[in-house]
Formats: sequence, C-alpha cells, structure tokens
Amino acid sequence: MRLSKTFVKTLREAPKDETARNGALLVRAGYVHKEMAGVYDYLPLGMRVIEKIKNIIREELNKIGCQEVLLSTLQNPEPWEKTGRFDDQEVDIWFKTELASGGILGLAPTHEEPMTNLLKTYISSYKDLPLYVYQFQTKFRNELRAKSGILRGREFLMKDLYSFHTSEEDLDKFYEEVEKAYDRIYARVGLGDCTFKTFASGGIFSKYSHEYQTILPVGEDTIYYNSDKSLVFNKEVFNDEVLKEFGVSKEDFEETTAAEVGNIFKLKFKYSEPLGLRYIDEENKPQTVYMGCYGIGVSRLMGVIAEKFADDKGLCLPESVAPYKICLVGIGENGVKKAEEIYQGNEETILFDDRDKRPGEKFADSELIGLPFRVVVSDKTLDEDAVEITERKTGETRKISFEELSRIVEGR
Amino acid sequence: MRLSKTFVKTLREAPKDETARNGALLVRAGYVHKEMAGVYDYLPLGMRVIEKIKNIIREELNKIGCQEVLLSTLQNPEPWEKTGRFDDQEVDIWFKTELASGGILGLAPTHEEPMTNLLKTYISSYKDLPLYVYQFQTKFRNELRAKSGILRGREFLMKDLYSFHTSEEDLDKFYEEVEKAYDRIYARVGLGDCTFKTFASGGIFSKYSHEYQTILPVGEDTIYYNSDKSLVFNKEVFNDEVLKEFGVSKEDFEETTAAEVGNIFKLKFKYSEPLGLRYIDEENKPQTVYMGCYGIGVSRLMGVIAEKFADDKGLCLPESVAPYKICLVGIGENGVKKAEEIYQGNEETILFDDRDKRPGEKFADSELIGLPFRVVVSDKTLDEDAVEITERKTGETRKISFEELSRIVEGR
Repeated sequence: MRLSKTFVKTLREAPKDETARNGALLVRAGYVHKEMAGVYDYLPLGMRVIEKIKNIIREELNKIGCQEVLLSTLQNPEPWEKTGRFDDQEVDIWFKTELASGGILGLAPTHEEPMTNLLKTYISSYKDLPLYVYQFQTKFRNELRAKSGILRGREFLMKDLYSFHTSEEDLDKFYEEVEKAYDRIYARVGLGDCTFKTFASGGIFSKYSHEYQTILPVGEDTIYYNSDKSLVFNKEVFNDEVLKEFGVSKEDFEETTAAEVGNIFKLKFKYSEPLGLRYIDEENKPQTVYMGCYGIGVSRLMGVIAEKFADDKGLCLPESVAPYKICLVGIGENGVKKAEEIYQGNEETILFDDRDKRPGEKFADSELIGLPFRVVVSDKTLDEDAVEITERKTGETRKISFEELSRIVEGR
Repeated sequence: MRLSKTFVKTLREAPKDETARNGALLVRAGYVHKEMAGVYDYLPLGMRVIEKIKNIIREELNKIGCQEVLLSTLQNPEPWEKTGRFDDQEVDIWFKTELASGGILGLAPTHEEPMTNLLKTYISSYKDLPLYVYQFQTKFRNELRAKSGILRGREFLMKDLYSFHTSEEDLDKFYEEVEKAYDRIYARVGLGDCTFKTFASGGIFSKYSHEYQTILPVGEDTIYYNSDKSLVFNKEVFNDEVLKEFGVSKEDFEETTAAEVGNIFKLKFKYSEPLGLRYIDEENKPQTVYMGCYGIGVSRLMGVIAEKFADDKGLCLPESVAPYKICLVGIGENGVKKAEEIYQGNEETILFDDRDKRPGEKFADSELIGLPFRVVVSDKTLDEDAVEITERKTGETRKISFEELSRIVEGR
C-alpha cells in the first residue's frame, strides 16, 4: 500500500477525551477513528489488523472442527425471557430499540440464547452431536463509562464459539481442545508468554470458569499467580476456601493487573434447559444437550496488543498481526526510484511511504505506525548496493543486500 | 465439507410466515435461519455465499483503487442533525436507542453522514484527493413490513462506497469507473445478462441517479426498457418530459418488474456542504469536496441470485457464488469408500454427503441445495472406472473418468 494513497494521516495529537494509551496511539497512527466513547471506526490499517487476528482465530478453530455462522444483532426478546436475561435488572448493559410494527427488540450483547434457540431446529438426535459453532459478531453493550480505548467498547467485535454435546465427558474433552487452540492463538498473536489461563467464578452448573488474562499495567482485572504461573486466580476467587481446595498458600502468589482476552465456560444445562434444547438418545429417550461457550474479544485483543508492545515512540506490532511487514522510505531521487522498484509486486507486505515529506517526519511516522521493520534506500546505501533495515522492536539498524531484503519481504 | 459434520439439515417445510421463494428455499436448504421478519442468521452454507459475493466486490473495487474501512453501527445524532436526517419525519426507518449515560443514538441505516464527517479529519489539501473508501457493513432499517425474504431486510449487509473529489470532472470520471466495475461484478455473480443500469430520480444536485435493476418476477420495482435494453427507466422517471429529453417515445419501451441490486449517485455537495467537508486548493483557497456514493446490497444480491435461478426442485447457484462446486454422493460400500478418497484434500470444493440416508433423499437434497454439479460414485460407475456427473442447471447426466473429475474439481 502507498501511504500517499491511503487517507491515513498520522495525527500529532490524540482526541482530548482519549485517555487510554491504546486508543491514543491507534488514533494517532491512523488505525482507528473515535466516533464516541467506546465506539470506533476501523481505518484501512486497523481493518488489516482485525482481519489478521480473525484469520488466526478462524484457522485454529477450523482445525478443531468448528463451523462459522453469523447470527443477527436484532434480538427477539422471547428466548431471552426464558432465561430471565431480557430484564434490565438482570443484564444491565442492554441497548434496546422499538420495532416500527410494534414491540421491543434488543441489540445482542452476547448470543447464548439465540444460538441455543437456533440449534433447536438442527439438533434432534444424538447423531447430530457434537457440534461446534462460532461467529465473529459485533456486540453492543450499554456501558455507563467507556474510557479504555478499544479495550472496552460499547460496540466491539467478538468471536464467540458454542459447543453442544451428549455428555459431560464429551464437553470436558472438547473444552481441553479449545484450551489448546486458545494457547496457540495467543502464541500466534504474540501474547503467548504473558497470557495465562485463570480461574474465575463459575455459575449455577460449574464452580469455576476460566479466563485468559494478559498481564498489563492498565488491565482492569487483578490476578494472583504462583512462581511458574501454572496456577493463576482472578481476585474474585482468590480466597481462603479456594486456596485450601487447591492446597496452596497465599504467600506463594504475586498480585498484578491484567486484561481479560478470552473466557471459556462449561455452561452444561444453563441455557439448554430453559430453552428446551434436547436430543433423542440411542435408547430413544429425550435428553438435554450439554453446552460450552468460548469467547475472544477481537477488537479488545487488538487493543491489548497495541498497549502491550507500545513504547514512547509509538506502536510496535508483532509481525503476525501488523498490517504490513515493512515501512519503506526512499531518500533522494535515486533512493525513491529504487524504493518504487522494491515496492512493485509487494503491495501486501510493504507500506511504501511515498509522501512528499521530509525523511525525519517519515521516520517518526514509521515508528508511530509500528510495523516490524523500516527499510531505507538512499544514495548512501545504494553506494554499497544495499538497503538499511531497522527492527522496530530493538531499534537495531544494519545494512543488508537486495537479495536478503527479498528474502525478508517474501518471508523465506 | 462433510454434510454429516455440518448442522445443516434440509427442512421439508419452510417457516409458515416465509412467503418469499428466496427466503423459503434458503431456509429449507440450510443457508439461512429466520429470526423474525426481515432478520436472518447466516448458516455455514450461507456464510460461504456471502463471503464469495463480498470477495468478488472487494476485488473489483480494489482494482480501481478503493480502500476498505469499517464504520460503527451506533450513530451520534450530531452529523445527522446537520443534514436534517436524524429527524424521523425525514428518515422514517431509524432504529433508535438510548445511551445509559444519557442521550439518543441511532443504528446506521446508511453511512453518508458519518463517512463525510470522518473524512474531515483526513482531508485538508487537494493533495489528499481523490479518495475512494468503502465498507461492508450491516445496515438497520425499521421497515413496517418485511416479507421479501432476504430481498428486504430490517438488518442486512451492504457494501457502500464513497468517493471524494476536487472537481465535477473528476467525479464524473470515477463514476464511469464504478459503472464498469459494477458491470464486472454483476457479470461475475451470474446476473450480467439480466441486470441493467436504470435511470432513477436524482436529488438536489443531480437530475438522475442510476440504479442497477435485475429483471425478476417478484421484484418490487417496475422498469421500462427499449429493445436492446440500452435505455432503461425506473417507473418514477418514466414520463413524457423525460422521454422527450431522451428523444424516445413510449411505444418503444416494455414494462417489467425488477429488483434493485445496486445504485450509484452523484452527491456533489449534498453532504459535504452541510457537514463542512472542505479542502485547500492549489491557490490556497478553501473549496467544498465533491462526493459520490455507490451501494450494493450484498445479502439482497444473494436473495436475487437465489430467486432468479431457482426451479421447482430448489436452488441453482452459479459456480462463482455457490458455497461448493460439487455435491458428492457415494452409493454402496465401494462407492462410499471411493467417494471418501475423492473428497480427501478437496474440502473447499466438495460438499460430501456422507450422511446415513437413502440415495433418493440425498439426490433430492442435492437438488434443493443447488450446487453446480452432483457427482455419484457407485458399483455401477466403478465397473466403468467412472463417476456420474449431473449438471444442476440442465439436469444433464454423463459418465466421466476420474481424471476428468480431477480437472473439474481443480478448475483446470
């Protein structure tokens, strides 16, 4: 992509009301645009990050046999009334709206009820199970405050997966598969070594649920972890009773703030029972379907990645989710000409800064945008038949040959 | 994809309130699920059709230099109040909702105002123009009635493109580029020979807009076309004054019903003026930006394609948008074994009906699902070292070798 042809303009200043670092940097670097607190537009660079994260999640879920669907935003109250969750006293973040032809609708804050309800049409026999269904859907939550950039949105993108089983054993087995898939997802987006499965409070049918928490100074959660981080608790379950159950003592744990980047939950009959999702077993008897649900906030994940790897110069995105691999700058007539040549045919890998600006400004912008590498071509480098490459993460600069550059561009 | 592993089940009956053929067939064939009138969920087969249509549109728009973004659904009234369009008297299909922290928000029925407003941050000089920005976004329209299946949704997927220019000539030039791109899009999705650019009513700044109308018995529009369909008018502008302007007479035109599958509009200053979208020209003077907008209803297009090519057995989708190319059925132990072999490695092209059902039922379902080809392997075909292939469109059946089947699967 040519920087001159995008409408992305790095901004000197973030909006005044943008207090979160991820929001401020993503706005300044032209990834997102703020519509109002908790509501953002995704510009071309931001779109590419979202799509890269989605594809990583999609690949890992398809590998374990999940199928993609897309459920509606507009919600008929009926299935929600069966679980009591249409009530604003019960769920206090609903956006509701009125249908011109009469009646109240909700904007889906999550999709357990419609998904369970939908599956009633398609599950009838034990032969139809197990079944794993997911979507990437915009969720709407009427938060009173939304000051965390894209970490907590009123409108945000979520991946939600639901699984359907004939037995608790089968649910347990798949739950473990999802744990492994989640580990692979967090590793691939660059958060592997700072993201931990965390015990959190359960519900009617399970003592605990699991969250995936990324250690982050501005995270909204408090977690406690042991020395090798094999045991991590959310503050809400970090009490004497739980510690006793796990046979560990308080002193072995350290406290830190963290951001939740995923959660997995054994729902069992929580939704299938009130909504009547049943199947006929091998003895021809009706049985209630076991369910699990598994979420990852996609836009929040982008925010956490932005926040986690930023420094005082700007963003610093891992290659797997960066919109492009290389920011290319040509200096002087010959440098620009050679840069044009390098750019040709590599539009998906290179963000070519072909703007009519001073090199210093281009360098500062390339650090703000935070692609993994910056490549500079100038008379000076051309004299040595080379380009200068700088790694954003380390700031390390070295000269490499055109051949080595080709290898880097092509990912060989 | 294995049919047994999807939760798609062809249904004997469509929902009672589903009166539109496209809706009834798409529900019965497991492409979509109806949540309420005008609100549908997309199941795995339907998701694939939507994605294929989106990719065709994306490719053609990217070719002419357009950039993809994603704007929010939740709408701050402010920019809409500047054009008068937040008023329910002016735009009568708003869904509105209340923010917990106070204030009314709208759910975007279209995005001219937020897009124009957004661009104020990024357009300042003539050097920033022209600019072409599009998105695939779910739109919300509070229709009193919604009885046309996915042809008219209360929640539906739309591609909307907006262009920004320094002059009317530049707008005219790009408008023509979009016309050509639209022709390519309709041709690629299989509607090329029944979709026509149609004169429709304009607005403040243009005498006419253009719609793309597909001839369709259940279409909601009435159009008039001349013998070679080089001149097509929407009923709303088919009057003596217009006919005189074009130098043609009423008798040369035939009437038909049609469904609108796209529209293009020279907005000029309609939104840029009230919203103050200006740029500084080469003489350092502020000027108002010229705008155009260009829509295609993606889910409606899927409905039109479904409706257009259906017959009494079911759907009949063009290869470019069909979720898979081939429905594969094995009969008998050897047939099933060989079908398994054929399926391996071709999961993206073949929908393998591996269900425990009678061949007759599988054949009927394959016709309902409407993929371009059905392939049958049985003892009978194996005796001849062949498979039987049936074209859905013509019903023509012939025996082909495994080698020829490979060629068809691989699209060689």
